[in-house]
Amino acid sequence: MTSVGVVTARSMHFSEPLRLQSGALIADYTLVYETYGQLNADKSNAVLICHALNASHHVAGYYADQPKNTGWWDNMVGPGKPVDTDRFFVIGINNLGSCFGSTGPMHTNPETGRPYGHDFPVVTVEDWVHAQARLAEALGIEKFAAVMGGSLGGMQALAWSMMYPDRMEHCIAIASTAKLTAQNIAFNDVARQAILTDPDFHGGDFYAHGVVPKNGLRVARMIGHITYLSNVDMSEKFGRVLRSGQYLFGFGVEFEIESYLHYQGDKFSSYFDANTYLLITRALDYFDPAASYDGDLTKALANTRAKFLLVSFTTDWRFSSEASQAIVKALIDNRREVTYADIDAPHGHDAFLLTDERYHDLVRSYFDRMWFDIESGRD
Amino acid sequence: MTSVGVVTARSMHFSEPLRLQSGALIADYTLVYETYGQLNADKSNAVLICHALNASHHVAGYYADQPKNTGWWDNMVGPGKPVDTDRFFVIGINNLGSCFGSTGPMHTNPETGRPYGHDFPVVTVEDWVHAQARLAEALGIEKFAAVMGGSLGGMQALAWSMMYPDRMEHCIAIASTAKLTAQNIAFNDVARQAILTDPDFHGGDFYAHGVVPKNGLRVARMIGHITYLSNVDMSEKFGRVLRSGQYLFGFGVEFEIESYLHYQGDKFSSYFDANTYLLITRALDYFDPAASYDGDLTKALANTRAKFLLVSFTTDWRFSSEASQAIVKALIDNRREVTYADIDAPHGHDAFLLTDERYHDLVRSYFDRMWFDIESGRD
Repeated sequence: MTSVGVVTARSMHFSEPLRLQSGALIADYTLVYETYGQLNADKSNAVLICHALNASHHVAGYYADQPKNTGWWDNMVGPGKPVDTDRFFVIGINNLGSCFGSTGPMHTNPETGRPYGHDFPVVTVEDWVHAQARLAEALGIEKFAAVMGGSLGGMQALAWSMMYPDRMEHCIAIASTAKLTAQNIAFNDVARQAILTDPDFHGGDFYAHGVVPKNGLRVARMIGHITYLSNVDMSEKFGRVLRSGQYLFGFGVEFEIESYLHYQGDKFSSYFDANTYLLITRALDYFDPAASYDGDLTKALANTRAKFLLVSFTTDWRFSSEASQAIVKALIDNRREVTYADIDAPHGHDAFLLTDERYHDLVRSYFDRMWFDIESGRD
Repeated sequence: MTSVGVVTARSMHFSEPLRLQSGALIADYTLVYETYGQLNADKSNAVLICHALNASHHVAGYYADQPKNTGWWDNMVGPGKPVDTDRFFVIGINNLGSCFGSTGPMHTNPETGRPYGHDFPVVTVEDWVHAQARLAEALGIEKFAAVMGGSLGGMQALAWSMMYPDRMEHCIAIASTAKLTAQNIAFNDVARQAILTDPDFHGGDFYAHGVVPKNGLRVARMIGHITYLSNVDMSEKFGRVLRSGQYLFGFGVEFEIESYLHYQGDKFSSYFDANTYLLITRALDYFDPAASYDGDLTKALANTRAKFLLVSFTTDWRFSSEASQAIVKALIDNRREVTYADIDAPHGHDAFLLTDERYHDLVRSYFDRMWFDIESGRD
């Protein structure tokens, strides 16, 4: 299996204002994206990949000047890979409010001439999907072969299936959920509180102060990271191993797990934007398409027309198997075609990003069948 | 069932230095404690209750000037209660390093004349047990009818059974474990990092600056609180309920669970000492009696002589049922007498503090039998 190789991010500017779910208006904005493979003549082989919390449009390949900066789903997308770029035209897109290129809180607010900061409007999964749909239109893609994502990306794929039922053949949602649990919201809340109460946050306008709320971001990331791993996986990888082999009777790094978390927290806080973290966790909290139907997910999914692939992982306690199964149940209630697998993997929520043969084989087979349908002209 | 009524905290000063596991020496110290019920003539009815993270010697009853300040295990300890103070002489003790009266980081370091702060030595579960044993000696109690605790308190009871096997008849460890998992240590680590990186922490010497690292303590407590509750319990109590019934598109409190966590965090940070939080979480991390026996818990428990009662709760994911069962297994390997129940309660780790009929009935029956043995002169 090879990589898609050198890739280049593109950007597209939209000058038609976007009305958000909150009522706020983004006057104009830029979306950054990447594409891999070739769009076929009848434009029937396009796959949209939606990203999760800390990822971006950079799904596969690497940049000419950054050969080690590999896309976040490079094990999934590429020539001969489960999402085969020799067959499919794959689009990775960066969402509004992100800190990786698309218009976000660190960019200049045209109304004030200063960075948006605190004034960047709260965006929802549905807002992102509307913006993505505009990009699709601009690229001339009337109907996606598939809209696909993991975790928060899976929420976007699900939202697509409800908001634009006629503009996709398949919806692929991995390690996702139709709504966060109270515990999930609680973890997001604590992470946000760590950022909001960091004195260097300055109410979201830290750019003007030349500082970054690193401590808050660091704690936020460490909390998140614990929830991405399973208890079992963490025990196997780190256990109670001490870096120096003995207790040092202090509060510095002693256990390997502490070292690992600090490394993750430090790294994250050196590149991620604090306002983006707030925005994305809020989008996670808010997603709940059944809420408009008295909590009835079956009704919420009634107007979908896509075929569905859902995958969950048995040790994922952030977005549990039960959460995926609730979606499967609601889809079957609606007599939708659903393929579902609950993969017995030890890696918790992170499993959706890792190479697991059974998981990748399933996605590969699903795309093989999709390709057969495209080739044979069926839909 | 009635309360033990008005209680008064007592204190005892120890001028003989205490050598700690770290090698450090506490030159002299004070332990604060409370007692309920009457010590019988042959001193065979004494029960020591060890406290967990945020609790104290104030186990039962209330203070004359604070009628609402009820002891943390008042539902368990009192006349006619499972630990019946009409029969047993119960001692609640506050551990070294705590912020509720016994010598701790906020007290004056005799060597410097300033508060200990950063210089208060790291204390371990075993150090606490040594200090508790000295108090027992001073009170003339050669052998406890039982040493009892939940969570970190259960670790102390277990340590007692290994360190002073001849000085207790029964060891009662509820919702406890013989060692933290990597995930547990990770949660403690993040909580500590929130405190350590709060600018108001001042390296532990915040007393001199007239500030308290409230933000760090608040985040620490919120993280802890999430882990005390079960996912199911949190969903049932809070779900996705919004305080105002609608999304406000901001980062303030919107979900009920956020409101609850902030309340808990604010309350905790207004009375708990940040250095104590660091000390107690480190004591939790370090407890691992099997480590001295190549990880063999059976060997670690080989010299115990007590009879054991262990209780776990099915939804406790902080100190899981499996953790208690590992202790039960090791005790049975050693042919110890063990009573064990895994209570199917929805309340997570917090269940050990709550009133559950099956749980309380079990403890009551256990103490009934203990009382029968004492009355009939058997041991």
